[in-house]
Amino acid sequence: MAHTLILLRHGESDWNQKNLFTGWVDVDLTDKGRAEAARGGQLLKDAGILPDVVHTSVLRRAITTANLALDAADRHWIPVRRSWRLNERHYGALQGLDKAATRDKYGDEQFMLWRRSFDTPPPPIEAGSEFDQTSDPRYAGVDVPLTECLADVIPRMMPYWENDIQADLRDGKVVLVTAHGNSLRALVKHLDGISDEDIAGLNIPTGMPLVYELDDDFMPTKPGEYLDPEAAAAAAAAVANQGR
Amino acid sequence: MAHTLILLRHGESDWNQKNLFTGWVDVDLTDKGRAEAARGGQLLKDAGILPDVVHTSVLRRAITTANLALDAADRHWIPVRRSWRLNERHYGALQGLDKAATRDKYGDEQFMLWRRSFDTPPPPIEAGSEFDQTSDPRYAGVDVPLTECLADVIPRMMPYWENDIQADLRDGKVVLVTAHGNSLRALVKHLDGISDEDIAGLNIPTGMPLVYELDDDFMPTKPGEYLDPEAAAAAAAAVANQGR
Repeated sequence: MAHTLILLRHGESDWNQKNLFTGWVDVDLTDKGRAEAARGGQLLKDAGILPDVVHTSVLRRAITTANLALDAADRHWIPVRRSWRLNERHYGALQGLDKAATRDKYGDEQFMLWRRSFDTPPPPIEAGSEFDQTSDPRYAGVDVPLTECLADVIPRMMPYWENDIQADLRDGKVVLVTAHGNSLRALVKHLDGISDEDIAGLNIPTGMPLVYELDDDFMPTKPGEYLDPEAAAAAAAAVANQGR
Repeated sequence: MAHTLILLRHGESDWNQKNLFTGWVDVDLTDKGRAEAARGGQLLKDAGILPDVVHTSVLRRAITTANLALDAADRHWIPVRRSWRLNERHYGALQGLDKAATRDKYGDEQFMLWRRSFDTPPPPIEAGSEFDQTSDPRYAGVDVPLTECLADVIPRMMPYWENDIQADLRDGKVVLVTAHGNSLRALVKHLDGISDEDIAGLNIPTGMPLVYELDDDFMPTKPGEYLDPEAAAAAAAAVANQGR
C-alpha cells in the first residue's frame, strides 16, 4: 500500500519578517504568512491531495497555518493531533536576536555554524530570559531544551514520526504535517537519506506543500514533490539568504 | 472533585446574517462572527478559565470559532476533538430558506413550531438538494439525518456527552465545547433539567462563554454563568426575535 505524506512549513511569521531568531518563541503569522497558508491549502485542494488527519507542533504559527490551509482545502473538519516534538529547533540564547546583527557581531563563520551546522548548538538560553519557555503550561512534563542544534532535534522528533505519524499512515490516512523549518529538515533528512554534511544546504520554503509517496516501510518511492516547484525553488533560495 | 465545562455557541455566520435556515450547511463566519469568537476567548483569558481540551462539531463555523477563541486565550495548542454529534440540528427542507419568507409563507404558528417545538421536525430535505450532506466525506459511516427536531438531536448528542466529553472532565480537564444553538440547547436542557415545554423559551447567544461547575455525576452544582451576563441577555433576546 502506498502512503501519502504532506509536509508544510508555516507561513511567514512576525519574526521571519523582522529577521529575528525565533525557535520556541510563540510568535504569530504575518498577513503574508496567512495568505501563504491559505494558498498552500488551495494547492492541495486543486491537486486533489486531501489530508485525512493533521499533525502540528504546539506553536501558534504552525497551528494557524494548519487551520488556514485546511479551511482553504475544505478539510477543516479532520482530526487534529499536536506535539511539542514537531516544534522548531530551540535557538537558545539567540532567540529574539536580529539575524543580521548577530552575523555582524559574531562573524559569518560562527553565524552559519549556528544556523546550519548539524551539531553546533547556540549558547543556551539564560534562566529568566523573557524568551524562556520552561514554565509554559503547554510543556508540563516536557524536558524543555535550553538550546538545540539539528542533531538534537532528530532524537526528539523521530519518536513522534515513528509512533504517531506512522500510525496514521498505517491506517491508510493521507497525513499533513504542519511544522517548522528545522523539524521538517530533520524529517526530510531521514526520508531522503541526506548526510550530516549535505543537510546544511537544504532549505524548506514557507507555505509550500511538499508531497511524499511512501512505501510500507514509510520510505519514499520517489523524491518528494512541491506542488508549485518554481515558487518553492525561489522561496528556498530566499531562506538560504536570510541574514545576508 | 469539581469539574469545569464551558459552552460556546459559534459567532455570527453568513447565514445568521442573511437570516437563512442553516442546519448542516457548512457556511463561514462573518467578520462580526470572527470578532465575537475572539472576544469569547478574551473573556475566558480575562476570567482565568482556561480550557485544557476543546470539542467541536465538524462544521466550519464552530471550528473557526474555536480556533479564534483559543488563539485569543493563548490556548491554541490544546488537544482538539471533533464530532458530527455536536452539529447543529438538521433543518431538513428548510435549509437555505429565508426565515422571514418562511414565516410569511407558512404562518407564525407553523414557523414557531418548526423553530422551537420540541418534537416537530421540518419536512425532510429532498434527495439531490444542493444543501444535502449525505455524500459529504466527513460523514462517511454516519447515518446522516434528513431532518431533525430538538428531540432528535438529544439521542445523537448525548452519547458524545457521556462517553467523550465526560471522559475529559473525569481526567480533571477544563473542557470547552464549541458548537451550535440547538446542540447546546440539548445539552443545557439535560444539565439544567429543563422540561420539553420550557426548552422552547431558551435561547443561547453567539460567542458568549457559558460556564458550568459540575459535580462528580457531571451535573451542575449551581446555575451556569455567562462570563458577560448583560451582553448575553441582550443577545439571547435578539435570537428569540429572529424571523420577526
